[in-house]
Amino acid sequence: MTDLTRIELKAPYLIFIGDTDEATFAKTGFGIVQWRRSLVAGQLRFAGNQLDLGVPDMSIEQAVAAGVKSIVIGVAPIGGAVGPRWISVLAEAAAAGLDVVNGLHLRLQGFADIVAAAKASGAALIDVRVPPAGLPVGSGRQRSGRRLLMVGTDCAVGKKYSALAMTEAMQRAGMAATFRATGQTGIMIAGSGVPIDSVVADFVAGAAEVISPDNEAQHWDVIEGQGSLFSPAYAGVSLGLLHGSQPDAIVVCHDATRRSIVGAAGAGIPSVAECMDLNLRCGRVTSEDIQCVGVSVNTSELPPAERQAYLSALAEELQLPCVDPIADGCEPILARIRSCFQS
Amino acid sequence: MTDLTRIELKAPYLIFIGDTDEATFAKTGFGIVQWRRSLVAGQLRFAGNQLDLGVPDMSIEQAVAAGVKSIVIGVAPIGGAVGPRWISVLAEAAAAGLDVVNGLHLRLQGFADIVAAAKASGAALIDVRVPPAGLPVGSGRQRSGRRLLMVGTDCAVGKKYSALAMTEAMQRAGMAATFRATGQTGIMIAGSGVPIDSVVADFVAGAAEVISPDNEAQHWDVIEGQGSLFSPAYAGVSLGLLHGSQPDAIVVCHDATRRSIVGAAGAGIPSVAECMDLNLRCGRVTSEDIQCVGVSVNTSELPPAERQAYLSALAEELQLPCVDPIADGCEPILARIRSCFQS
Repeated sequence: MTDLTRIELKAPYLIFIGDTDEATFAKTGFGIVQWRRSLVAGQLRFAGNQLDLGVPDMSIEQAVAAGVKSIVIGVAPIGGAVGPRWISVLAEAAAAGLDVVNGLHLRLQGFADIVAAAKASGAALIDVRVPPAGLPVGSGRQRSGRRLLMVGTDCAVGKKYSALAMTEAMQRAGMAATFRATGQTGIMIAGSGVPIDSVVADFVAGAAEVISPDNEAQHWDVIEGQGSLFSPAYAGVSLGLLHGSQPDAIVVCHDATRRSIVGAAGAGIPSVAECMDLNLRCGRVTSEDIQCVGVSVNTSELPPAERQAYLSALAEELQLPCVDPIADGCEPILARIRSCFQS
Repeated sequence: MTDLTRIELKAPYLIFIGDTDEATFAKTGFGIVQWRRSLVAGQLRFAGNQLDLGVPDMSIEQAVAAGVKSIVIGVAPIGGAVGPRWISVLAEAAAAGLDVVNGLHLRLQGFADIVAAAKASGAALIDVRVPPAGLPVGSGRQRSGRRLLMVGTDCAVGKKYSALAMTEAMQRAGMAATFRATGQTGIMIAGSGVPIDSVVADFVAGAAEVISPDNEAQHWDVIEGQGSLFSPAYAGVSLGLLHGSQPDAIVVCHDATRRSIVGAAGAGIPSVAECMDLNLRCGRVTSEDIQCVGVSVNTSELPPAERQAYLSALAEELQLPCVDPIADGCEPILARIRSCFQS
């Protein structure tokens, strides 16, 4: 069923790479393959491009024959501008009936050839950064099911990664769990969601309510967080998402070596304890029994010999499981959730 | 100088009333006359309408002769829909070169006759609920000048009234002070501002920075608040506004008899102390020395005999001046500001 208030993407995907040949410009493509390999039929590279997501190469024609439903732009153009070769391939895909899925800042509606091709075939043009129409104002109504939200001491501290890793850990443990995306890359991985920072301010909490709707009593929505309550630029997004998500539990995400808020003049990073405390305090407005179930730390910039001591000291201070999910996985946090939410 | 990132209205105004004959539908018109009488040249009523803002009646022709620059829709249409007589008068005004200023939910661009008339004369069509383009992301950069922000235990607890009353009290006391509007009625009163709840979430704090820019060291911007950190629907707007406003001081606005948050399922109103504490805590992210200088309470629903005891008990509890600004004015809060911010 299509939900008009959420973006919904159709799988399987052909990932468009074109002439982008640097891995740092292909994080979206690599992310989709890493977390949703089963949705990916193949990749489309221009001749001679060595960048490889590790999936089969396909032309548009082969993709159509293989039942592909969407071409997903998996890279940013090196240099920033989309050239005529990109447009011609995307228009060819649209003409063949594939939805075109774009997470870049540009709008597909700005490219007449792609628009005309999509119109003729009936394919959809989906700008993942543009929120769908019809989002409601938040109501605060209590919903069924359980929700786990990633919160952060700053932007870009691993909230998306942690949410995806937590979802997989829950599913491996036999729990019913769904990753809920709130940003463009997350939406392309999940296949649905709302780009919450692009929503008009009055509707942020309402959008968060739409993202994690009523569900089975034991089902967990694992919600990708955004920003930080301590970010001078983006805290409002974070608070609306916290209220609308109505989380039973939060995980605090943190970068062990970062000292100041990204992009802000002189604002310091809060301690994990302070971040946890403020999120719990604010979260009680819509979720009376909200609790913190663990901390997810990016320790990659710490000297290897200090990593474990850092996590142990934090765990001792907070009396909570503290992990680096990339290095150690997140099973200790999962164990905490199972013990706190036994049914 | 026109600031592209803020709405700017041109005075003097002709206030359009048309056939709206109930005062509750004319709050905007009455508000403009109450707070900015000097900007208002007259009112335009349809024949036989007895509703009276207490300013001279004028036709479009008379308004043009009197140097009027804008026709401002000062009422909501009874029944909700704008009829053909409204459109014909607004189109006549636009044809005569008056800017048309609209704070209703409708968009002026949707009325072909008005659009054509404005295009021919060069008049502007200004939808006050639509934020201007080009708003930046918040930077957190420390600005010069002083800022006072109204915050609230809920929506609609007197934040706009309190900000306007505080601005007037400051000006009467010889202080340099400017009211800064963040909502459509406030913008029509102030003549400029940004409708902050209509801004895309990522830009709310940046919009607040634009609303109260650098100023003389002793100058006060008195900023209209929006929503409440405790509102399940709108708290994100309030937090972005708090961070972007970078206030030196806050006044907490409260309704003495309200028990639950407007429009929210079951969320209770926080105590004034709790509201003050959370705003100060969050406000420190961008304003290290933020302090609360008083409480503005709507006591109109209290029995008259209990009013003073209520305010005295609150003042004793918080050790802050607590006033009902409509009944008592706000001089005690002003006195507190003068003692805290002596130069």
